[in-house]
Amino acid sequence: MSHEILDTTIPSLGKAGIDSPLISSDIASHQSFIDDKDRILVSIRMAELEADLKKKKPLTYFELAGPRRKIYYDASKLRCAMVTCGGLCPGLNDIIRSIVLELYHHYGVRNIYGMRYGLQGFIPKYGHEVMDLGPASVTNILDRGGSILGSSRGPQDIDEIIDCLERMNISILFMIGGDGTLRAAEQIADTIMKRKLKISVVGIPKTIDNDIHLISRSFGFDTAVDVSTQAIIGAHNEAAGYPNGIGLIKLMGRHSGFIASTASLAQQDVNFVLIPEVDFDLEGPSGLLAALEKRLASRGHAVIVAAEGAGQKFFQDSPEERDESGNIRLKDIGVFLKNAISNHFKSRNIEINMKYIDPSYMIRSLPANANDSVFCGFLGRNAVHAGMAGKTKLVIGRWNNHFVHIPMEAATSQRKQVCPDGELWSAVLEATGQGSLKNPA
Amino acid sequence: MSHEILDTTIPSLGKAGIDSPLISSDIASHQSFIDDKDRILVSIRMAELEADLKKKKPLTYFELAGPRRKIYYDASKLRCAMVTCGGLCPGLNDIIRSIVLELYHHYGVRNIYGMRYGLQGFIPKYGHEVMDLGPASVTNILDRGGSILGSSRGPQDIDEIIDCLERMNISILFMIGGDGTLRAAEQIADTIMKRKLKISVVGIPKTIDNDIHLISRSFGFDTAVDVSTQAIIGAHNEAAGYPNGIGLIKLMGRHSGFIASTASLAQQDVNFVLIPEVDFDLEGPSGLLAALEKRLASRGHAVIVAAEGAGQKFFQDSPEERDESGNIRLKDIGVFLKNAISNHFKSRNIEINMKYIDPSYMIRSLPANANDSVFCGFLGRNAVHAGMAGKTKLVIGRWNNHFVHIPMEAATSQRKQVCPDGELWSAVLEATGQGSLKNPA
Amino acid sequence: MSHEILDTTIPSLGKAGIDSPLISSDIASHQSFIDDKDRILVSIRMAELEADLKKKKPLTYFELAGPRRKIYYDASKLRCAMVTCGGLCPGLNDIIRSIVLELYHHYGVRNIYGMRYGLQGFIPKYGHEVMDLGPASVTNILDRGGSILGSSRGPQDIDEIIDCLERMNISILFMIGGDGTLRAAEQIADTIMKRKLKISVVGIPKTIDNDIHLISRSFGFDTAVDVSTQAIIGAHNEAAGYPNGIGLIKLMGRHSGFIASTASLAQQDVNFVLIPEVDFDLEGPSGLLAALEKRLASRGHAVIVAAEGAGQKFFQDSPEERDESGNIRLKDIGVFLKNAISNHFKSRNIEINMKYIDPSYMIRSLPANANDSVFCGFLGRNAVHAGMAGKTKLVIGRWNNHFVHIPMEAATSQRKQVCPDGELWSAVLEATGQGSLKNPA
Amino acid sequence: MSHEILDTTIPSLGKAGIDSPLISSDIASHQSFIDDKDRILVSIRMAELEADLKKKKPLTYFELAGPRRKIYYDASKLRCAMVTCGGLCPGLNDIIRSIVLELYHHYGVRNIYGMRYGLQGFIPKYGHEVMDLGPASVTNILDRGGSILGSSRGPQDIDEIIDCLERMNISILFMIGGDGTLRAAEQIADTIMKRKLKISVVGIPKTIDNDIHLISRSFGFDTAVDVSTQAIIGAHNEAAGYPNGIGLIKLMGRHSGFIASTASLAQQDVNFVLIPEVDFDLEGPSGLLAALEKRLASRGHAVIVAAEGAGQKFFQDSPEERDESGNIRLKDIGVFLKNAISNHFKSRNIEINMKYIDPSYMIRSLPANANDSVFCGFLGRNAVHAGMAGKTKLVIGRWNNHFVHIPMEAATSQRKQVCPDGELWSAVLEATGQGSLKNPA
Repeated sequence: MSHEILDTTIPSLGKAGIDSPLISSDIASHQSFIDDKDRILVSIRMAELEADLKKKKPLTYFELAGPRRKIYYDASKLRCAMVTCGGLCPGLNDIIRSIVLELYHHYGVRNIYGMRYGLQGFIPKYGHEVMDLGPASVTNILDRGGSILGSSRGPQDIDEIIDCLERMNISILFMIGGDGTLRAAEQIADTIMKRKLKISVVGIPKTIDNDIHLISRSFGFDTAVDVSTQAIIGAHNEAAGYPNGIGLIKLMGRHSGFIASTASLAQQDVNFVLIPEVDFDLEGPSGLLAALEKRLASRGHAVIVAAEGAGQKFFQDSPEERDESGNIRLKDIGVFLKNAISNHFKSRNIEINMKYIDPSYMIRSLPANANDSVFCGFLGRNAVHAGMAGKTKLVIGRWNNHFVHIPMEAATSQRKQVCPDGELWSAVLEATGQGSLKNPA
Repeated sequence: MSHEILDTTIPSLGKAGIDSPLISSDIASHQSFIDDKDRILVSIRMAELEADLKKKKPLTYFELAGPRRKIYYDASKLRCAMVTCGGLCPGLNDIIRSIVLELYHHYGVRNIYGMRYGLQGFIPKYGHEVMDLGPASVTNILDRGGSILGSSRGPQDIDEIIDCLERMNISILFMIGGDGTLRAAEQIADTIMKRKLKISVVGIPKTIDNDIHLISRSFGFDTAVDVSTQAIIGAHNEAAGYPNGIGLIKLMGRHSGFIASTASLAQQDVNFVLIPEVDFDLEGPSGLLAALEKRLASRGHAVIVAAEGAGQKFFQDSPEERDESGNIRLKDIGVFLKNAISNHFKSRNIEINMKYIDPSYMIRSLPANANDSVFCGFLGRNAVHAGMAGKTKLVIGRWNNHFVHIPMEAATSQRKQVCPDGELWSAVLEATGQGSLKNPA
Repeated sequence: MSHEILDTTIPSLGKAGIDSPLISSDIASHQSFIDDKDRILVSIRMAELEADLKKKKPLTYFELAGPRRKIYYDASKLRCAMVTCGGLCPGLNDIIRSIVLELYHHYGVRNIYGMRYGLQGFIPKYGHEVMDLGPASVTNILDRGGSILGSSRGPQDIDEIIDCLERMNISILFMIGGDGTLRAAEQIADTIMKRKLKISVVGIPKTIDNDIHLISRSFGFDTAVDVSTQAIIGAHNEAAGYPNGIGLIKLMGRHSGFIASTASLAQQDVNFVLIPEVDFDLEGPSGLLAALEKRLASRGHAVIVAAEGAGQKFFQDSPEERDESGNIRLKDIGVFLKNAISNHFKSRNIEINMKYIDPSYMIRSLPANANDSVFCGFLGRNAVHAGMAGKTKLVIGRWNNHFVHIPMEAATSQRKQVCPDGELWSAVLEATGQGSLKNPA
Repeated sequence: MSHEILDTTIPSLGKAGIDSPLISSDIASHQSFIDDKDRILVSIRMAELEADLKKKKPLTYFELAGPRRKIYYDASKLRCAMVTCGGLCPGLNDIIRSIVLELYHHYGVRNIYGMRYGLQGFIPKYGHEVMDLGPASVTNILDRGGSILGSSRGPQDIDEIIDCLERMNISILFMIGGDGTLRAAEQIADTIMKRKLKISVVGIPKTIDNDIHLISRSFGFDTAVDVSTQAIIGAHNEAAGYPNGIGLIKLMGRHSGFIASTASLAQQDVNFVLIPEVDFDLEGPSGLLAALEKRLASRGHAVIVAAEGAGQKFFQDSPEERDESGNIRLKDIGVFLKNAISNHFKSRNIEINMKYIDPSYMIRSLPANANDSVFCGFLGRNAVHAGMAGKTKLVIGRWNNHFVHIPMEAATSQRKQVCPDGELWSAVLEATGQGSLKNPA
């Protein structure tokens, strides 16, 4: 993390003045309430800490997530809504289930709604019906992946969304989504405050790529790595099974190589890992093609893993395209590499056997594994605690092993990436032996 | 099975006159030897049987596979070789292991060789070294898929292959491969007999598609179906997760729809199954596109499974291409359908969310599941028994629940296909409710 | 199969005279109806066939299962019930689902009931409510194991059961259960006929042990073998991980060793397989303990798989006990062996590290794997076809690769067992190298 | 963590004065070296930090793990050994592999030895041979669980162990084991220093229970939770499948309930979780038996998960026993509960159907899942870096998301336990609704 000073105070809709129903419950005797003054330090490096202390710089901290003794809303009259946006990710149903059960059983909220198909669900013209949610509708939704609410990509009009919330008389809105969704959530929260409404907006960051700033882990990532190893085993078997066999896998990772790097450590059959954070050349004495040719000559086969955002420099001259969410549409590095490799060896008159594997949609649609499932349960419960306390414009995050409240703008201000001289990438370089793949300038 | 008369006598290199070493082993007291006169009826329908008996037609039978009391080769001097050809298939290593262990432990054969990379392994110009095989080299090869010998596609010169066998002094050759390989095996066996050599050629039919004539089950198929269901779940989740979501999966099956049909019964989330055996239209009132549009209108999402050989009529006008094995290169029905569906809905101004999944290489490279692993063990052991008895030009097959000897030419004479009015396809039609997808003439 | 002559005619409640609704459906154009005269030969060995023909003995055949052109019941007025009895087995929910969907969609039956908790469900004093079944209640029941209807062990009064059927006005009863259940079903069917009622009783044989006579495969067995291999891997790792390590696993198999034998072939880490069909000694020069000691001395570790019904002779002197179903309660061979081995090595002053694994309840409660799921679908559909045709007192079985009708008394007349000189047990002896474990008389 | 002041300086055998070979390697350009002054704060709660700063108390920190620019040993002459002790745990082979590859490839160490069967491997009288280790012997050891070195329980004479190290001329010893092993390691390191030898002792804490003080996560735990969910699903299906069905599972956890708690959150079918940290009664109005009876009356079935160390108070009067490692042998809470529940309902004349599942040995022997595999890789590499730098008497741990050096005595000084008023146990209470299970005093 870059060593910035952040104001990490979480906005509130007003003073939380109602006793939490948890106080009288059986659980209450067991669980300590969390105070807004329970905070953890963000940067824990001693050197930075000592420097800051010397300069008397204020320390940056995060508020701990968890149940508050005083809550803001009267649960008996409260209406809550939730929405899942963007691409599928293992764990969506776990979070939905966890929010619903916590609202229902522990705060006694009886009016809980699921908006269908992402932000479209708020907009009348799409005609998507709202889903009533309660224990019966969420108990058995974990065996399968996807989202029972459905999802969609792309922005919708902020005011129309808030109009819908007002019409439905919603007081807490839970938004589960990626970068774009969180930025929309920020705008919604700001506009709500401008319109002097009393609606909390609580975000849960969703990114299978694990690339959200200030959040050490995002849900679904562990499941994605788990299953990516199957694709690597397959690619390895196909590569090793033929003379000059090449297995080429495209894994998720638009802006960061966490999945590609971690999966390549989990299943160490990979010889070249290509990620957005580390530049590489195709041609030239140190380029990928020469390295690949050398590897085939000495070992007879090779496995390559490319994150989908790797090597975008090769497409610089092609016209920019954007998808419905406004994200720049990445050129397909998988297909590009497949063709480049194929052409290279054809021109060198070397017969190869290349197999291309793109497991993306088989991974995104999976149910969460045990680890992610437990993690999602905590995310959901803590989102409810934050909302019930009247907090807004925050996301629930994980930092240094604690669940914390992070201001939305901090989470969306920049992206987390693989550090090219950190331990993760060093481990990948050791495991693959791939060297730099970059020609001297 | 069509009701033909087959001569199913298995050729022999000579009279088997040596006592099987199994006789004196501990196993011998347990296992009955099989006699060449132990045979099973091929067609077991009473009506056909009674008609044949009336007409005094000779009944078609298969010789049972299994150990013979008298064997042809002197194990102490015997040299055996094996080769795996064509595409990967779950179970190859199981068969290799089973052949090696049976030769070694039960017949005492000490010279066992693995030819590398398919038929290339016999041809000097490729320079592939031969692999020495014994218990140590095969004990732990089952945890991973692929073939430890490697494979390759395409034919090689028959005489060069036999020259290699002569040079290496091989007396039994085990060939594991598909259609093309078995036809090569037939030619090799014929040429061997013409050249008056004493070399048995025993085949084990490999086809993940399960499409070999007279063989009710081929290894790897069960594993393939097992894992295809994962792709179907993924496609379903992606489809159900978006407005007008479509999940499109291409599964294996060049000439037969067994994998597509069986997987769609195993995971009943599929709305349209397309196979080579059943014609369908794209356009028109009963065509796939209209049916798909109707399904989206009523249910909001759809899952389509296409066997790779389905709908080849749509490519009739494109020039024919062949791969290295001489197989006609199929046009890619997956990509074709993806484009056709996309264009159709664009022209109708309907927004859809389509995800395309092609899990082929993740499936072919898997290790065998338990069922296939046991099955492969029997195939390998029975291949050894047949070879040791001096039989040649046969494949080991499974028919009516028995392991049998099948003449090579019978197995390659035609293909097994899904019967459009049989119970498998009827069950698929029931499970999908897809109707005929064929416009009235 | 022993070579008996069987009368395999299936009883009927009367003449089936109504046109099947399948005739007019879209499926009908695809599916051939099956005629009662479509039959398959039971014994397909040529030698037996020729001998029978010579002696003019009538040939034994089974009627093919499948849809009939004429049916017996008027679907619009029909009420059907189903029940699952005895121990859990992978696939129960698949069969329930398949019966319900076939009755509903293809015959138009609208009154379908599930009896709760086995035969208890028929008996008023237990107070179990009946479950209404239809497509909505069965669509998503396959992701988990068990039975949505529940089950129970033990017999109930036959007349009370039939009284319940009469009160509920049931015309077809589907009974899914083991040996005891099928014998109860036989009695129910007989009494129904005596009481001149028009109620079909159709059985689907359930035995995870795969030990039903005349049925080459029973559902759940394949899943059980699949997962048993996990226990074997665990036992092997524990055994190999310690000096004189012993892994001891008890697998299912009260009267037959199919699971133990097949799992030991699927995961070849097992050194001793003990099954009910093959006698073995504990003490003495050839007994298990001596063999085990030898194995530890030479290899340092050993894995033993015991079917639960193995070695019952060691309990001959203990008093007989019966469970609620009236089955003789087996003494626990697993615990017995654990103690015997432990005592033996203690007395010999040899330190061992033994781990005992009993995975039974983790296996019985699993969902069906893909193979079993497809198989169960066919069993359910064929049970419906048989019931709709007015047939009774039959079970749906699988014989020589065809689904067939088998008279109940034939299926329950004796048990299928592992043949000690057949190919399965021979393969186990080869894979383990265990020898006879039986002292010379 | 209790807020103690710890001296966390790591002892050194001498000044590290040799340039790391990593400097000249290709990796070096990518990886920053870690300086001994790179440290992280141990307690990151702001309140504690501010209080400490106010009182000018020294802050407790951990040294970061990672490669050092200067190393202590001359790799070309170095001999290293490693040993795995105690019970099996998923990930042992991953750590062995990682240590070997890092020593070999990145430091150029050529003499690497594996001691067989735990501490026994050092003691001549056992006669276990030493295993030579190098890339070839560890490349393919991850597909299976266990430890290729084997293990054993129980202490051995410290001086004999050091004599062996001297004889073998070992300079770095890697010890992978639990509590007892780490205490032995401490003694070994102390004695080595007393005997003025130059041998580093580096520990890697192994505890599937995740109960090591100051270590936020131990390897194998994630895999254990993952697979425990299978046992819970099985228990649930068995319980729900019968009238008054009870599924009782014993999971690992001698002194802590992390596995039981986390697995019960991952698979929320559990109604009662029993852990060592939280007292419960059996009898009385609030005791487990009354609560269970109530649950059966209202819901018809129940699932209970007991950590193996739960409820030890019930055995207070039985004589204490110890296993070979000197650990107090726990009385079996699983069997105890099974009998207590059975007797209770018998005495109340209520028929129940209880199934008892003890999956322990199927879990311990598993290969690591992807997450644990990656984690183990880092543990192994960091252990090597620490050893090469001449550090000793430390373990590699994970704290606040960083790999760190922890003094051995700090790690073994106390145990980590589930905090009864923390978020984990609160979440369990919410998920189960089990209440306190404790009678008022």
